[in-house]
Amino acid sequence: MANLDTIIKDLVIANRILAKEDVVDAYGHVSIRHPDNPKHFFISRSLAPELIEKEDIVELGLDGQPVRDDKRALYLERFIHAAIFEARPEVNAVVHAHAEDTLPFGIAAATKLKPVIHSGSFIGPNVPVWDIAKKFGATNVLVTNMAQGRDLAKCLGSNSVALMRGHGFASAGRSLIEVVRLSVYLPRNARALMKAKQLGGQIKYLSQGEIDSRARGYSPYSVETWRAWHYWATKAGVGDMVTRPDAPVAVSKKSTKKSAKKAAKKSKSAKGKKR
Amino acid sequence: MANLDTIIKDLVIANRILAKEDVVDAYGHVSIRHPDNPKHFFISRSLAPELIEKEDIVELGLDGQPVRDDKRALYLERFIHAAIFEARPEVNAVVHAHAEDTLPFGIAAATKLKPVIHSGSFIGPNVPVWDIAKKFGATNVLVTNMAQGRDLAKCLGSNSVALMRGHGFASAGRSLIEVVRLSVYLPRNARALMKAKQLGGQIKYLSQGEIDSRARGYSPYSVETWRAWHYWATKAGVGDMVTRPDAPVAVSKKSTKKSAKKAAKKSKSAKGKKR
Amino acid sequence: MANLDTIIKDLVIANRILAKEDVVDAYGHVSIRHPDNPKHFFISRSLAPELIEKEDIVELGLDGQPVRDDKRALYLERFIHAAIFEARPEVNAVVHAHAEDTLPFGIAAATKLKPVIHSGSFIGPNVPVWDIAKKFGATNVLVTNMAQGRDLAKCLGSNSVALMRGHGFASAGRSLIEVVRLSVYLPRNARALMKAKQLGGQIKYLSQGEIDSRARGYSPYSVETWRAWHYWATKAGVGDMVTRPDAPVAVSKKSTKKSAKKAAKKSKSAKGKKR
Amino acid sequence: MANLDTIIKDLVIANRILAKEDVVDAYGHVSIRHPDNPKHFFISRSLAPELIEKEDIVELGLDGQPVRDDKRALYLERFIHAAIFEARPEVNAVVHAHAEDTLPFGIAAATKLKPVIHSGSFIGPNVPVWDIAKKFGATNVLVTNMAQGRDLAKCLGSNSVALMRGHGFASAGRSLIEVVRLSVYLPRNARALMKAKQLGGQIKYLSQGEIDSRARGYSPYSVETWRAWHYWATKAGVGDMVTRPDAPVAVSKKSTKKSAKKAAKKSKSAKGKKR
Repeated sequence: MANLDTIIKDLVIANRILAKEDVVDAYGHVSIRHPDNPKHFFISRSLAPELIEKEDIVELGLDGQPVRDDKRALYLERFIHAAIFEARPEVNAVVHAHAEDTLPFGIAAATKLKPVIHSGSFIGPNVPVWDIAKKFGATNVLVTNMAQGRDLAKCLGSNSVALMRGHGFASAGRSLIEVVRLSVYLPRNARALMKAKQLGGQIKYLSQGEIDSRARGYSPYSVETWRAWHYWATKAGVGDMVTRPDAPVAVSKKSTKKSAKKAAKKSKSAKGKKR
Repeated sequence: MANLDTIIKDLVIANRILAKEDVVDAYGHVSIRHPDNPKHFFISRSLAPELIEKEDIVELGLDGQPVRDDKRALYLERFIHAAIFEARPEVNAVVHAHAEDTLPFGIAAATKLKPVIHSGSFIGPNVPVWDIAKKFGATNVLVTNMAQGRDLAKCLGSNSVALMRGHGFASAGRSLIEVVRLSVYLPRNARALMKAKQLGGQIKYLSQGEIDSRARGYSPYSVETWRAWHYWATKAGVGDMVTRPDAPVAVSKKSTKKSAKKAAKKSKSAKGKKR
Repeated sequence: MANLDTIIKDLVIANRILAKEDVVDAYGHVSIRHPDNPKHFFISRSLAPELIEKEDIVELGLDGQPVRDDKRALYLERFIHAAIFEARPEVNAVVHAHAEDTLPFGIAAATKLKPVIHSGSFIGPNVPVWDIAKKFGATNVLVTNMAQGRDLAKCLGSNSVALMRGHGFASAGRSLIEVVRLSVYLPRNARALMKAKQLGGQIKYLSQGEIDSRARGYSPYSVETWRAWHYWATKAGVGDMVTRPDAPVAVSKKSTKKSAKKAAKKSKSAKGKKR
Repeated sequence: MANLDTIIKDLVIANRILAKEDVVDAYGHVSIRHPDNPKHFFISRSLAPELIEKEDIVELGLDGQPVRDDKRALYLERFIHAAIFEARPEVNAVVHAHAEDTLPFGIAAATKLKPVIHSGSFIGPNVPVWDIAKKFGATNVLVTNMAQGRDLAKCLGSNSVALMRGHGFASAGRSLIEVVRLSVYLPRNARALMKAKQLGGQIKYLSQGEIDSRARGYSPYSVETWRAWHYWATKAGVGDMVTRPDAPVAVSKKSTKKSAKKAAKKSKSAKGKKR
């Protein structure tokens, strides 16, 4: 059970990071697949990501319904997660959000979102745009059932991100830390591309070879990836919750304690209650 | 009287949210109609929204004048509210503000502000631009009497928002929570459209059917709407003031207390004095 | 001497507001003319505006030199202030700053900065661009002597603001509160115009009649102007320093004390030391 | 050894400033050459700049390898620093970062980054763009060995900054305070130029004479430069660590103590632990 506890703690951290880094606001969510039961996943009950605690996490099945009898309200769009976990066995974490600077690329026909900066390489060479109206006509634009979720998952295909026209994006990763990082740098890559277009002339995108090389070198618990996870968690006020299961380099007791202290002090939002 | 007390508390929360979310600054205001007397409405005395407390709220008539003898200075532009309440019996709350990213759409002739993102659907398919100069010539651009207020209300018609050329916007809703949400997402929709225009090509606006579908599904006390209200209030440091009169899902004592505590700790501005 | 004390306190407040509102950073300054001796003015010693306290204020003559023997380092560009005070007897306060969004208008030849929003009206119908190179050739672009200051003042003429090519702006007002307000809204007006240009089509500027009407109605201690001053000071953490010498509407003891308390609590930067 | 201690303290301050001013995030680094041994330099171990303390600083040789036996993980891209120190004997400090608004200029072919504002003059008249793919083909875009570092240093030549296509920039200065200032104002200069391009018409760049005049007048411990360093350190919460070895104007005990106190109170991130 220690493992599940870590996973749920990491999911809380992920929510706080996405809120602090402006990927989600009152809306948007992140989920992680159950490590022992691939047909279940964890996600928060209906709550703004910045306010989520461990006890807010619920366990859902691949139909998007709660596994246990739980009367708490759930996210309307939990089917995005269910359908992607269903379609992609290798995916272990999913984010859905409305990060502002990704929106223009789902609305304007002329410019395709592609990686232009190294930290954006993980969005992959192809970012499809899903338009719910194509199959479902005049909806409220939300993904509120499995049929819609599956259509989105189909459009996503084997890619890492799909834009959702007039709405936001869905991203999928092999690990939680990976999908969070991808989702934080997605809007940054979008801004770099938008501004480059304004400067004019030919745009130098990352080459396929560069995208592949970066993907090959990626590891969710590498020193470099963990540096960002640790930093973002600290900024979000939950640095004291960070644990690193398979640290290749030992984190000394002293340094951990210090970081936790600093995290609590530094956090602008100072959610410093005992956990 | 408990009801009135709740309404005034909600109006304070609305002011703080609009300030925190950068919809208002030193200027801008929000009002709510008296629940028992449709010819009266509540609004703050002349004060920056971020500083407003319950005792700053005054009661005005549909002529924009105070109902009780009150020597405190009032907003010059309270006639915007009076005239909209007069013209629109179904409207119960009004916002007037100068949110920066709405301004370009009142100034530039070429691009009409329309919903391009789902959270912007509530601005409605038609956002008229009111130019005070058309009828009133060379004024100080402010709405300082009922004649000007009525001309604005006429331009607003049955729409949810009117832009005011070189000045800002006025928005109207059936409930306070609705008009606040609309006003928070209005600048975001404006930014998404501006950036989409820069990316070029055809713009995919929300369709009329999508706008209608979202309007039909909207409820000011739905789980989803309340999630944002609760989150924004918490961010603005007044999470402990939030009450939910007709909660479809019970908010447990424990969770409420926790949220209030977190709100007080999290609030950057920490207005944590007893209310 | 009480009067001088108030003026120096107001100058500290002005510095803090300009810092908090991103008009100045490590650089930029604001000055006020001596009320009893028009040939003297007050300005801080060389220090970042956000850090300035009452004891940092020095008294200079219209030659830009200190009146008293003072060994503390002074702003290199104090001659901007000296020369404008010399040329414009009706001007009582001057700001020089590098607010980021004013810079493009001093660099790009095609678009003239003019008022497009009501809060920008005070920059006036004509904002000249001064280029130091025209008369002084290849300098370090700074105004470091009276000859350069006088050339800038000549370019400013009877206007409220002059842009300084590749550098920033200088603004002048009849009162401190006026020049601060103008300087805060100047970058906002610049942004609104830049974005309107991007939206395309004809731009509706404020008309001359509207600019005149607003200028006529302006008073540095009106309820409306003071609302902003009080709010900005509170945001900047110096709300407790605010005093209002000629208040047309009495500020109750209670409300003042409350505001001061809130200011101290709210201030993100919490410079809460006793003054 | 007092000298070394000061240098390491200054390097911590530099890291904190670059983080606070949004030049670096989880990634990016700054280094300083050993004052007594030009073949060594100091840089942090692999850690986000905002979290760095004195004990995180390591000493490396010009091959990018640690001088002492140290098992802590190092920055992958430390070879950027090593190669620039190797190629440029007069350079004593180096920054590598991904500041967002510098990125478009490395991606878009049409617009060259050049100084348009006085604070941007220190980037120099020529900012080359280095493309790692030109010599090394399809890499992960990172500079992970001396060969790549040397190729970048060659492209940098005698300039102050080189943009790195799809990645970021490397900047070099005679002193730490100089390279930090350059790196803070580099993105600001980039934004001013981008926006000027949007306004249209001819762009007025700083002239060669102006760039030269400013470079001649620059001194890392001038009153003006130190004002920014002191201010930025205070904002970043490490104002109490600032010392000024060769102060031309005495900093009074009282003022220093006051500043340190204010720094601790003001710092939003309040890392107020004893050092």
